[in-house]
Amino acid sequence: MKKFVNDPKDFVPEMLKGIALANPDTLQYIPEYNLIMRKGIPFANKVSIMQGSGSGHEPAHVMTVGKGMLDAACPGNVFAAPPADYVYQTTKLVSGPMGVLHLLNNYTGDTMSFDMGQELAEMDGIEVGRVVINDDVAVKDSTWTVGRRGVAGNFFVMKACGAASEEGKTLQELVSIGNHVVEVTRTMGMALTGCTPPAKGSPIFTLADDEMEMGIGIHGEPGRKRVKIEPANKIVDELFEAVADDLPYQAGDEVALMINGMGGTPISELYLLYGHAHEIAEKRGLKIKRNYVGEYCTSLEMAGFSITLVKLDPELERLLAAPAEIAIRVF
Amino acid sequence: MKKFVNDPKDFVPEMLKGIALANPDTLQYIPEYNLIMRKGIPFANKVSIMQGSGSGHEPAHVMTVGKGMLDAACPGNVFAAPPADYVYQTTKLVSGPMGVLHLLNNYTGDTMSFDMGQELAEMDGIEVGRVVINDDVAVKDSTWTVGRRGVAGNFFVMKACGAASEEGKTLQELVSIGNHVVEVTRTMGMALTGCTPPAKGSPIFTLADDEMEMGIGIHGEPGRKRVKIEPANKIVDELFEAVADDLPYQAGDEVALMINGMGGTPISELYLLYGHAHEIAEKRGLKIKRNYVGEYCTSLEMAGFSITLVKLDPELERLLAAPAEIAIRVF
Repeated sequence: MKKFVNDPKDFVPEMLKGIALANPDTLQYIPEYNLIMRKGIPFANKVSIMQGSGSGHEPAHVMTVGKGMLDAACPGNVFAAPPADYVYQTTKLVSGPMGVLHLLNNYTGDTMSFDMGQELAEMDGIEVGRVVINDDVAVKDSTWTVGRRGVAGNFFVMKACGAASEEGKTLQELVSIGNHVVEVTRTMGMALTGCTPPAKGSPIFTLADDEMEMGIGIHGEPGRKRVKIEPANKIVDELFEAVADDLPYQAGDEVALMINGMGGTPISELYLLYGHAHEIAEKRGLKIKRNYVGEYCTSLEMAGFSITLVKLDPELERLLAAPAEIAIRVF
Repeated sequence: MKKFVNDPKDFVPEMLKGIALANPDTLQYIPEYNLIMRKGIPFANKVSIMQGSGSGHEPAHVMTVGKGMLDAACPGNVFAAPPADYVYQTTKLVSGPMGVLHLLNNYTGDTMSFDMGQELAEMDGIEVGRVVINDDVAVKDSTWTVGRRGVAGNFFVMKACGAASEEGKTLQELVSIGNHVVEVTRTMGMALTGCTPPAKGSPIFTLADDEMEMGIGIHGEPGRKRVKIEPANKIVDELFEAVADDLPYQAGDEVALMINGMGGTPISELYLLYGHAHEIAEKRGLKIKRNYVGEYCTSLEMAGFSITLVKLDPELERLLAAPAEIAIRVF
């Protein structure tokens, strides 16, 4: 796959520089720790929220820093956990009297870095809370994960905790809110194609012209099965059933429904997929109160998508609807 | 290229259905004329604005319908102009006492449909104005165009006219505003790959693994040259120079700068490209007052991007900054 890249080792720093240049009033790029941080965090009145993960999943997480979402994101290289020192230094930079919330998707590498980063921060007297996201129903354990993987459902944790933090909720309250969102959120994804990390220069996996992989991970980890391509509606049927039956989401439940593009799928196709998912949801008696169609957690230029359901209550719905300001925007 | 599709002939209608289902309070899909229309247009107080074009350029234009942008969009099939009857019927549906503004990108097929659609509407006594967008500096004439092509710069015409229409500006005033935006807007794009219309099932053109096409059209029309791939910064240098020297944009000018993805380019790469474009702009003495990084006018899953510059004045800047509500959104 061809890419827009200069020296591959500069891929992540050059992206981060672009994000900061595009948001000069609200974001800063700190090269020493590879991080994007919100300017003017009102430390006295809010818990700071940060996320670290591999790069290559943009907009997650470096483009979701801003008022009402993350206060900082410290990415690693493409598909690689951030070093523990970056987690530590980022925690220090965003720490205020109300403490710091670490959000992390459940991957072993991220967990190791955050364990150490948290320990170092706590030795400095910084209060740290943690929410681990593991919304992917596809497989129990995976290549880089013990337990379920964290994928696009992470968006809802960031959004709800971000809104609550702006309201002055305590660290303990934010941990409860985040854990509640994790409890009511489920996702499954699939891919038509692999993707190519810039430094690797070749696809991390390949699928034949007539194949797709159901339940794929966001770093190309194996899913449930590799099968012949089906019509779009059949793919939606299968993903939706796997997601909806897991919690399970039941008739009468109020939900948020997300169709997340994996990076290389045109938005036209995402809306086609949304239309069918919406109809299935209604047939099951689910009440769609909020919907999300676009790219939230990607795998570079992978063609594919995931379906996420979130069971809403009035408080969660209110937090999701609260205003926020981040790098990705239309206007 | 693999796609999410059921019967290819249903691709556009199924996408439109998805858009309407995702926006039940604000948008409606009218299958008879293949159109997406805003609900509750305040006809008495505003000129209605509509656009028709081929599909395959989403979010343009069916996902940019909403308060402060378009009141309706009537797309044709993928890369095909809407039939004249759709233009006529859409014009009738959105017509009110203040008249209807037609926005169209400069392609011969679209122009023919809009000529006839406008004539039919005027025979019904509907007042129609027109703005033709031709921001692409790449070539003078092209496969489907006499004169310059209309591409991503169209976004700024929709946004400025949309905001002005909400303020109650007259049809004549909107035509002036739209023409002014066209006069100060320039774009050039390039591609790393071709793209595959669902009904065709094969790429509209192909590029070798080490090739790119500079100045590509959004339907794969030939650009200025097909050359070996260069590092990202060199590609930005060349596009930026072609765009900036055309108006020309001069030191001291206040501008909007857009990096538009063609559909298959990850947003990480778009921000990397933005970073360098921002630096070049500043070196030339341009003052970047607004920036746009994302997908605004695409070619299905084509990997590529375009650079757009808009010369701003305080009034245009104000119109671009005005609020708007459309299908594509983050929250």
